[in-house]
Amino acid sequence: MTSSNLEAVSKHIDANFDQSVDRLIDWLKIPSVSTDPQFDAEVLRAAKWMQDQLNDLQFETKLIETAGHPVLYAERKSSNKDAPTALYYGHYDVQPGDPFELWETSPFEPVIADSKYGKKIVARGAEDDKGQLMTFIEAFRAWINVAGDLPCNVKIMLEGEEETGSPSLEAFLKENKGILGADVCIVCDTGMWDIDTPAITYSLRGLVDATITITGPNRDLHSGMYGGSVVNPLHALSSIVADLHDQNGLIQIKDFYEGVPQLSNSERAELADLKHDDATYFGEIGLSGPAGEPQFTSLEQMWMRPTCDLNGMWGGYTGEGHKTVIAAQASLKLSCRLVGDQDPHAILKNLELFFQERLPTDFTMTLKNHGMGVAVKLPVDSPYLKAARDGLEEVYDNPTKLIGTGGSIPAVGQIRETLGIDSVMVGFGLDDDNVHSPNEKYELTCLQRGIQSHAAILEKLSEIK
Amino acid sequence: MTSSNLEAVSKHIDANFDQSVDRLIDWLKIPSVSTDPQFDAEVLRAAKWMQDQLNDLQFETKLIETAGHPVLYAERKSSNKDAPTALYYGHYDVQPGDPFELWETSPFEPVIADSKYGKKIVARGAEDDKGQLMTFIEAFRAWINVAGDLPCNVKIMLEGEEETGSPSLEAFLKENKGILGADVCIVCDTGMWDIDTPAITYSLRGLVDATITITGPNRDLHSGMYGGSVVNPLHALSSIVADLHDQNGLIQIKDFYEGVPQLSNSERAELADLKHDDATYFGEIGLSGPAGEPQFTSLEQMWMRPTCDLNGMWGGYTGEGHKTVIAAQASLKLSCRLVGDQDPHAILKNLELFFQERLPTDFTMTLKNHGMGVAVKLPVDSPYLKAARDGLEEVYDNPTKLIGTGGSIPAVGQIRETLGIDSVMVGFGLDDDNVHSPNEKYELTCLQRGIQSHAAILEKLSEIK
Repeated sequence: MTSSNLEAVSKHIDANFDQSVDRLIDWLKIPSVSTDPQFDAEVLRAAKWMQDQLNDLQFETKLIETAGHPVLYAERKSSNKDAPTALYYGHYDVQPGDPFELWETSPFEPVIADSKYGKKIVARGAEDDKGQLMTFIEAFRAWINVAGDLPCNVKIMLEGEEETGSPSLEAFLKENKGILGADVCIVCDTGMWDIDTPAITYSLRGLVDATITITGPNRDLHSGMYGGSVVNPLHALSSIVADLHDQNGLIQIKDFYEGVPQLSNSERAELADLKHDDATYFGEIGLSGPAGEPQFTSLEQMWMRPTCDLNGMWGGYTGEGHKTVIAAQASLKLSCRLVGDQDPHAILKNLELFFQERLPTDFTMTLKNHGMGVAVKLPVDSPYLKAARDGLEEVYDNPTKLIGTGGSIPAVGQIRETLGIDSVMVGFGLDDDNVHSPNEKYELTCLQRGIQSHAAILEKLSEIK
Repeated sequence: MTSSNLEAVSKHIDANFDQSVDRLIDWLKIPSVSTDPQFDAEVLRAAKWMQDQLNDLQFETKLIETAGHPVLYAERKSSNKDAPTALYYGHYDVQPGDPFELWETSPFEPVIADSKYGKKIVARGAEDDKGQLMTFIEAFRAWINVAGDLPCNVKIMLEGEEETGSPSLEAFLKENKGILGADVCIVCDTGMWDIDTPAITYSLRGLVDATITITGPNRDLHSGMYGGSVVNPLHALSSIVADLHDQNGLIQIKDFYEGVPQLSNSERAELADLKHDDATYFGEIGLSGPAGEPQFTSLEQMWMRPTCDLNGMWGGYTGEGHKTVIAAQASLKLSCRLVGDQDPHAILKNLELFFQERLPTDFTMTLKNHGMGVAVKLPVDSPYLKAARDGLEEVYDNPTKLIGTGGSIPAVGQIRETLGIDSVMVGFGLDDDNVHSPNEKYELTCLQRGIQSHAAILEKLSEIK
């Protein structure tokens, strides 16, 4: 393999880009919503669609059962005996499409539309993570078509439960440790700095995620008959939620800040050097600026500080008009983002305690855990990090930024803990991609240069001694 | 008309009770859910069903249009020229059937089932208000069948919007004042003291009712990406809800207690004389006792004190599994029960102010008003009250209790204000009828003795000079 190979691969990618887009469109039509059992068959169909693709590329593939949705595993060796082995991680499941009424087009009928950067593909999963993981799949395809070979040994592990917190992945990793050995894990589920500036994500927040329901009376009550004499579960739940943070935004769950590192002056200076444009960033979502802990900058709030956020809350009558009812139950979905050495298990336990201690007389509660993950940080002197950075420089004029992210990819923590492998997170998402929101999109230029980048990174990885 | 007439009427009611039940069952099959526009045709069908019944009984009937659902008006004069005119009020609309999964049978497929009192009819509206208003309709039928005449002049006004706060009724009353003149209004939408002890309700709480939505960011956000840097609308709304009451349960809306009467010692003593069985009453709904303002008894909390209760709250992801989203919006439905001279208009204004003053930076809000009504109290020396009490004593061995209720019937306040007519509220509901809840029911003995009672009350009213 030579650099002329990479040039040919690059040309092949550009010449065949339309077909890459068509394949992504095909895949996006499958509503692989992992969180809702109604879509179980579609989730499986999405996995099999990709399995067919990888079979065509002469990967050895296997759909491996888990307690939940299966993992699609695939492997193809390089003829270069000395090449390292890279394990590529992505997820083929997507978020639900709702609220459907806020989509301009149907979430599972992908369309190509004009964007300020040229063209974009609009659909649920266009970015997260089908579009993103297609960048490395299409890079493999180009190498195989041009050189008949891959520069490195490649293993692929695509899970179907990332959007529900990867509840089955840890068990999967433990059970399949034997086949998953690799030198590095490459993850494509993160963002760029901006449309022209690539980024490698070196820190991720961890996650604790739960649904909590509190119950007061044993049935819904008429609010006229009983109002004034009973504790209304929606008020009780609101009061507990109001207690979660103090006036300075500090989370009041017991021992919550154990393991949260103090930010060093040098780290704060590095973050400040990124010169984050708060006015634009928050302006795009209709806000005048950051509103988190006042003693931290917005990047510190989003990447380096832990959080506790409701993701949903409901109870009583929520339809048209009104209904004078005191609901027997009130529920919420809540997630905590973790940093440093915060222990998800301890936090889950203390979260439950927090609610239990505040329950009114006669009230009961249930808590359902949706999975958890520790926070992770990649060593900045990693040779794989350097290879990824070198690869990105083949494609982009601007130097690569090393960034954190407030998001969580539980897989990355679990891969580190179970397989002992660090992950390099190279992704091509943009802040305005509407991930997890209506009108999710992926820029075609991000897709195209993402494929180019992964083709180059593959070569750079193969040069590591 | 003589007392022997009443005896014959009474026998006729018992002999034909099965047909009365069959007619009620027929009517309950029509899902006249007024709050949901999907059921508009059914609401109309329910009105027409009753119109046919009244036409058969030689009432002059008229379905009178309003801005919302129509009012069914009917009238039949007595041959007794000196008899007073009674205006009967009820409502033919019902609450929604949801949550359907908690019903043991389908809400709009009425069934007769065993109950601790004999037999009951189970369906949405079985009590509220189709079963209840059938007590006076069937009483009219019996008088007409037996005596060919009614002891009093009878007017009937059945509205189709009571369950949404009677938004069109005030305009209807004003526009149709000319035909609605009467000496007294009889309302059958309230409860008994217990299965063997009748009650006349002499006080009702008023109502203010609204849906409020607050909006922060202009779209749903990924809770990982943005969490920690933005105010989460569900937390913001929860904090405002938590502020609505202080630690003693006092409502913090500005000037809320203006017009709330101090309870006199004699009134408190009368209420105490009722010897309300808190253990049983709250035990039936799974609670150990009342939990309202500690300085008031449970009856005072429910009948004599104003309230502010959420009836629903929602935002973010509420489906299966989880979704790591920060919702752009959070909403709630809220109602205040009013007493004494509290002014619903002032309270609605100050409620909006309460939320507005607490909105975080960059947040906006909307408030939708669903109707309102003042609190009412019937003078205890009213001759119509006495007639009703005398009628009840023809049927029940136990003396009638004079009670308040925490519920609101906006119509009663509006009839007082617009037509200048007091209402006597005589109803046959029980505390465990699951009004507004799954498995709503009406005891057949309540239906039967309710019909007997209204037949007797008609005669007693005719004797008023």
